[in-house]
Amino acid sequence: MSDPTLYAVVMAGGSGTRFWPASRAARPKQFLPISGGQAMLSETLARLEGLVPAERQLVVTAASQVELVRATAPQLPEENVISEPEARNTAPCVALAASEVARRDPQAIQAVLAADHIIEPASSFRRTISAAAQTAARDEVLITLGVKPTSPATGYGYIECGEQLQTVEGIPVHQVSRFVEKPDLETANEFLASGIHFWNAGIFVWSTAAIQAAVGRHMPGARDALAAVQGGADLAEVYRDIPAEPVDVAIMERADNVRMLPMDYTWNDVGSWGALAELTPANQEGNHPVLSKGARLVSIDSKGCLAYAEGDRVIALVGVEDLVVVQTPEATLVCPRDRAQDVKRIVEQLRNEEGEAFL
Amino acid sequence: MSDPTLYAVVMAGGSGTRFWPASRAARPKQFLPISGGQAMLSETLARLEGLVPAERQLVVTAASQVELVRATAPQLPEENVISEPEARNTAPCVALAASEVARRDPQAIQAVLAADHIIEPASSFRRTISAAAQTAARDEVLITLGVKPTSPATGYGYIECGEQLQTVEGIPVHQVSRFVEKPDLETANEFLASGIHFWNAGIFVWSTAAIQAAVGRHMPGARDALAAVQGGADLAEVYRDIPAEPVDVAIMERADNVRMLPMDYTWNDVGSWGALAELTPANQEGNHPVLSKGARLVSIDSKGCLAYAEGDRVIALVGVEDLVVVQTPEATLVCPRDRAQDVKRIVEQLRNEEGEAFL
Repeated sequence: MSDPTLYAVVMAGGSGTRFWPASRAARPKQFLPISGGQAMLSETLARLEGLVPAERQLVVTAASQVELVRATAPQLPEENVISEPEARNTAPCVALAASEVARRDPQAIQAVLAADHIIEPASSFRRTISAAAQTAARDEVLITLGVKPTSPATGYGYIECGEQLQTVEGIPVHQVSRFVEKPDLETANEFLASGIHFWNAGIFVWSTAAIQAAVGRHMPGARDALAAVQGGADLAEVYRDIPAEPVDVAIMERADNVRMLPMDYTWNDVGSWGALAELTPANQEGNHPVLSKGARLVSIDSKGCLAYAEGDRVIALVGVEDLVVVQTPEATLVCPRDRAQDVKRIVEQLRNEEGEAFL
Repeated sequence: MSDPTLYAVVMAGGSGTRFWPASRAARPKQFLPISGGQAMLSETLARLEGLVPAERQLVVTAASQVELVRATAPQLPEENVISEPEARNTAPCVALAASEVARRDPQAIQAVLAADHIIEPASSFRRTISAAAQTAARDEVLITLGVKPTSPATGYGYIECGEQLQTVEGIPVHQVSRFVEKPDLETANEFLASGIHFWNAGIFVWSTAAIQAAVGRHMPGARDALAAVQGGADLAEVYRDIPAEPVDVAIMERADNVRMLPMDYTWNDVGSWGALAELTPANQEGNHPVLSKGARLVSIDSKGCLAYAEGDRVIALVGVEDLVVVQTPEATLVCPRDRAQDVKRIVEQLRNEEGEAFL
């Protein structure tokens, strides 16, 4: 069979505080050059090169971030940057994007991606998406990608997969038995050993017909709201009435036509500075520099430190180990790698003491 | 007797790298708000308030720093900022200043001060200077101030004082037996216990006649060079031939008319970020913030850290102890307090790798 017409929907509306001070209210994580020289959003789009052309790449983002998306991805047609009236978790976003793709091409297959994941190698990822798209073109199924666990991570949701139904381009297609919320360590260790549990990567592939049907069945309010918009209603007016839920909860856990394709290569949602340190190759001194063009790290007797700087600035480390050191024009953060999750407490404290000044 | 006419000569030509990145080639330590809200130079001049009016305060500085001195001390008459053709240690600077004061008032007493010391309380310091000035007005002596040691410091030169000759305004005036270079720890401990050893503060008081005579006797080349300038020679031409020595070596150690007055209050030449940490009062969390207007420190589970920032910027610390964290628009430094002396190695490394870009 011929390849289906594939659209990519990149959800890029996140805010979040875990990468403060590099991430700011006006420039969240997906716009940071966290895993290389360019913004994570740019890398997400570049990863699809050869599979989905820019004309079929849609980015859904907050109204406040539309200009930033356009500046970050100038290759996208203007109408491919879709402004979400407000952030209401992923389910309304998926429904909105599905409706938009349906308007353009009711036969299209959709791959729904986050803008801020590290996935390598890109060629393996394209192979998985391609196999998923062929599966979705053949059957009215909702496909989620599962990542083969490499550690007993307690920070991810898990997918318990069922029977293998077929292989497509060498990739197995599984039924899904159930979704499991973030487990405790004991359970995570069992999952790691089981061979049938996968990290829920939050990446989805489906036909427009399949997702429209699922929205109609499991999110009837969203279906009606978006239909009203087609009839002329104001999107912002109706959007706020759609329940703010993750798509996993609103659709995937309720649907009976879910399939999983496994990813057995590097995937990471880079949830904290600590995670980024683990993902960033060490330099000769054993530190992990995340430096954009012009930035420098100089170090003496220091190792294991993540050093993040942008622009023509320098981070100098003497005699320190396993720290996160982040430098921006407005702020410097210093914290041990294993306490990176406490950055959100700094953000809370700043909000209490200073308002939005440094956020 | 009536008070002599007292001039202050503030030597503000230093460069130095120990306060990098806050200090830069173009803005050395004396221009930093290290001990409070204003530049150390401003505090040095303010400390003399009521004793030496601005019209009799001279600042000797590098040609490249003249504008910065004027901006930092706008209350000074323009002709009171004296440009040194090149940095040649303190002896040529003292000779130049002596010659300049002599031109204005051959009867004047001169107090020669560094621009970058912390001295408290100011009223006690003024009392010492006043007593020294009265002593210098009466006898042709060269007075140095000695600081009563509070620890066996190995980073200072010491003065071994001799017989007490008199008291002036309740302050003893001693002969000086000898000057001792930076001692080892054992010797420093002996000095601390002896009661006759004092830190050499590098602060001098003398009459214009006394210093002119001493320059003539111990620095005849300088005397001739400066006389030639009075006759029309170019200062820059002759200055480079004056031996670059500290005034302690060039004059004080050779003179037989040296006296010492003790300072028994806070004096510190703030030689490093580590020294500044010790001098800076701890806040409620036990950290030592050195923040100029607009700058903030937020911390969680952190103590003993020196945090230096200027302007509308924030330093955030999580779970760290006894670090020096310095933030400037161009650089961030992180290092343990007890390794602050290694900052100069960072500066060397940057110079080797990047030239003068970050210096």
